[in-house]
Amino acid sequence: MGASKVIHKSIQKVDRQKLVQENDLLAVEEPLEIRLKYSSGEEISERSLSVTMRTPGNDFELVAGFLFAENLICSYKDIEKIYHCPQVKSDEERENVIIVKVGPHVTPDMKKTERHFYTTSSCGVCGKSSIEALNFRVGQHPPESSEKVAQSLIYSLPETLKRHQLVFEYTGGLHAAALFDFYGQLLFLREDIGRHNALDKVIGAGLFGKLLPLNNSVLVLSGRIGFELVQKAVVAGINLIVAIGAPSSLAVKTAEAFDVTLIGFVKKDRFNIYTGKHRITL
Amino acid sequence: MGASKVIHKSIQKVDRQKLVQENDLLAVEEPLEIRLKYSSGEEISERSLSVTMRTPGNDFELVAGFLFAENLICSYKDIEKIYHCPQVKSDEERENVIIVKVGPHVTPDMKKTERHFYTTSSCGVCGKSSIEALNFRVGQHPPESSEKVAQSLIYSLPETLKRHQLVFEYTGGLHAAALFDFYGQLLFLREDIGRHNALDKVIGAGLFGKLLPLNNSVLVLSGRIGFELVQKAVVAGINLIVAIGAPSSLAVKTAEAFDVTLIGFVKKDRFNIYTGKHRITL
Repeated sequence: MGASKVIHKSIQKVDRQKLVQENDLLAVEEPLEIRLKYSSGEEISERSLSVTMRTPGNDFELVAGFLFAENLICSYKDIEKIYHCPQVKSDEERENVIIVKVGPHVTPDMKKTERHFYTTSSCGVCGKSSIEALNFRVGQHPPESSEKVAQSLIYSLPETLKRHQLVFEYTGGLHAAALFDFYGQLLFLREDIGRHNALDKVIGAGLFGKLLPLNNSVLVLSGRIGFELVQKAVVAGINLIVAIGAPSSLAVKTAEAFDVTLIGFVKKDRFNIYTGKHRITL
Repeated sequence: MGASKVIHKSIQKVDRQKLVQENDLLAVEEPLEIRLKYSSGEEISERSLSVTMRTPGNDFELVAGFLFAENLICSYKDIEKIYHCPQVKSDEERENVIIVKVGPHVTPDMKKTERHFYTTSSCGVCGKSSIEALNFRVGQHPPESSEKVAQSLIYSLPETLKRHQLVFEYTGGLHAAALFDFYGQLLFLREDIGRHNALDKVIGAGLFGKLLPLNNSVLVLSGRIGFELVQKAVVAGINLIVAIGAPSSLAVKTAEAFDVTLIGFVKKDRFNIYTGKHRITL
């Protein structure tokens, strides 16, 4: 598991005075293939689910989080074994193929693995149907504490995220997703070139730590926030999302539909509350 | 086609002194389903290719650019008809389902529409195999002029992009992809919440304008740059990419493999050249 998140590369740095050859750091991007092994009848089937471009590191979490967020598994108990494909010969490539064997009690709905998570049975697709499809996938709201998060904590989150996210300083190329408790204690932070992957890793870490549902915690995201990120958070039971960037229209609508607090454009002295201000002490 | 790229939303703006309710602008995100209609033997088949979350606007370009970048079509001539699904009843939803009917001479390889664009027949996947798979999809390099791009032009591109990209100012939520000629003349700029979509729209605009391959032009991207963006550019014949953000390791390797000039971290007085400095006058 020696995969590095950054590599060195000699590049040309140009400014109005000079051109210098310098060593630079690049965020690593490599494909990861996820395969699912499951019982169907008497047989064991193996099926390739997806190939994702990701930054190596915490890959088992990424895979587990992805499966959970896509409703292919419901608990860490559904995973019997997770391992690198032994048939791949080169060490470098072996890290890029991960097989998840689910327990015999798990019968994943393989239709879910097709592209059309957002479509309903009707002919049309729209934001509303995307939210309805999600509604179908999410169970009961987990019980929630009546505690609120202090306004001052929100202001501090971008700086805290940055402090913990050292690689960002070097490459400017990695997204982060992090989970904090309501008092600002970091539970875990994961990085990836893809923002969805960073969140999948966080959800996977929660899954392996037997911490799901992740209610009563604050999810902090380094970038902008679209529907799919809110969707993943909702499936994991997260009900407070703080993004450094802006949310999309459908991210806000989805947060509204599932009573998720959505905060964006956070700076050290201001932020925007898009939905769910009742969870913040103002 | 009255779809808007932004919507108004009343939100809470919080700072250390006060909380005010204000109208804010959000980038619109809506699903778009792409369906392909093609002849197979004596029959006409229709198949749903993908559902993409996108910002409405230039949707036909998005669809055409996507099909081209995925090698499902090779030319604008392959498109017989492109239209909104007439069976969808509500006006709002109809814009979200687009059918492309390809000519009878086109037999799209439907295997390409499955998820595994990056895998080769070998068991492993890695950056190298991703590049090899792309190599298989790209034809001959188009002839290239010996003209170079001036260093001063590169410095000006972020500001030019911003000036043309008015929505960004309001929402902070839309990515842009734009094509310029070697003298800084804007050919077209397209926006989307997804950076891949913005590039697909640019490629689609080039396709409809019969401008492909898009060599001898400069592609400017508002964000970071990963493998898939370079891959799309390569398929469209683009050989000069300028990104405001940082490239990934695999973006740089792919640019190297296809002799694409890749410039990143552009500011008004400096930039980094990752590959292909021979196209810049320094």
